[in-house]
Amino acid sequence: MEEETEKITIVVFSGAVDRLVGMSILTNAAIAMDYAVDIFLMFWGTYAFKKDVLLTNNTLSEHLDFTGEKFIDALKTGGISPWYEMLKQAKEYGNVNVYVCSACGKAWQAKLEDLEFVDDFVGAGEIVYTSTQSKATYFI
Amino acid sequence: MEEETEKITIVVFSGAVDRLVGMSILTNAAIAMDYAVDIFLMFWGTYAFKKDVLLTNNTLSEHLDFTGEKFIDALKTGGISPWYEMLKQAKEYGNVNVYVCSACGKAWQAKLEDLEFVDDFVGAGEIVYTSTQSKATYFI
Amino acid sequence: MEEETEKITIVVFSGAVDRLVGMSILTNAAIAMDYAVDIFLMFWGTYAFKKDVLLTNNTLSEHLDFTGEKFIDALKTGGISPWYEMLKQAKEYGNVNVYVCSACGKAWQAKLEDLEFVDDFVGAGEIVYTSTQSKATYFI
Repeated sequence: MEEETEKITIVVFSGAVDRLVGMSILTNAAIAMDYAVDIFLMFWGTYAFKKDVLLTNNTLSEHLDFTGEKFIDALKTGGISPWYEMLKQAKEYGNVNVYVCSACGKAWQAKLEDLEFVDDFVGAGEIVYTSTQSKATYFI
Repeated sequence: MEEETEKITIVVFSGAVDRLVGMSILTNAAIAMDYAVDIFLMFWGTYAFKKDVLLTNNTLSEHLDFTGEKFIDALKTGGISPWYEMLKQAKEYGNVNVYVCSACGKAWQAKLEDLEFVDDFVGAGEIVYTSTQSKATYFI
Repeated sequence: MEEETEKITIVVFSGAVDRLVGMSILTNAAIAMDYAVDIFLMFWGTYAFKKDVLLTNNTLSEHLDFTGEKFIDALKTGGISPWYEMLKQAKEYGNVNVYVCSACGKAWQAKLEDLEFVDDFVGAGEIVYTSTQSKATYFI
């Protein structure tokens, strides 16, 4: 029974599409091992999940000379889908919850209906608490 | 009694003001839950805590098109204070210690009196050790 | 006996030379404390370990105005070696394994012989599993 609640926490501060790919790969890996995954969106993470940003966002976190086709091409060569397709799949097949830090939601004036994949707003205390209850935590 | 020593570790490699906001939000959340917080500054983190850099630093880690007013405006809209104000408050109300990796201090030729908020220099072994003793660790 | 298998996990998403310095400092600190270190390369991390990229890579993750001499000079002042020299040393003296996320290897069309320091390819599940078995995990 205890197994049912074992969790992986991913704190997503970044809203760069490369690091979001990292989030989605780890999420899919975790649900395949029957972990529940709690994703907490902080500043840029919240921005990247906005419906009016999600599909057009092509910001990279580094190697900015790869922005555009070069980055997309590398993903394709690796057989790696865009982060939002991988996350959609993970939410369908696994126990994945996405929460937004309330202050970060407010910063982008984003209500729940403005955000894709998001289940709820939480206080930052929830991020720390869930991390302490998780088998592993990644800050992305 | 064991509760008294329960810790959250934040390793701050970044010196970008956006990621430092993340550090401060998590720090305040952790002290509100009675965790002690140990912050370890590595390369850019040390740079950002230099007294001659702290107030003028406006480097972002990503979404560089937001540098300047756009980033500041989003924080204001979210009711989020600058990272150093939040950290000041956290140090006043909670058990928060800030340590600098010795080699990183040396890299910036920074003595203790050149750095804001910093309690001491430590070897990198202390970062790893404290992480292993903590309830959660974030690498920012 | 249990001590022998105690591990630190470092997930290296970044391929920026500054954050790789962070990886190497933590790795050397961990082996000095007799931890085994498992390094998992994800997207840019894999790119940075390519033999045809490693020595010429000068991408920073932030503070891009430091690219070139200013960054190198700060490292020198701190007595900090380039990341690959520190990692080479860590692999010689400690129990350090470097793994590449298979899809990320494919993305860069990198075979094992194209990559420096790398011991094997693994699925992403191995990253999550090893994190859950480690005393501390850093996502860089």
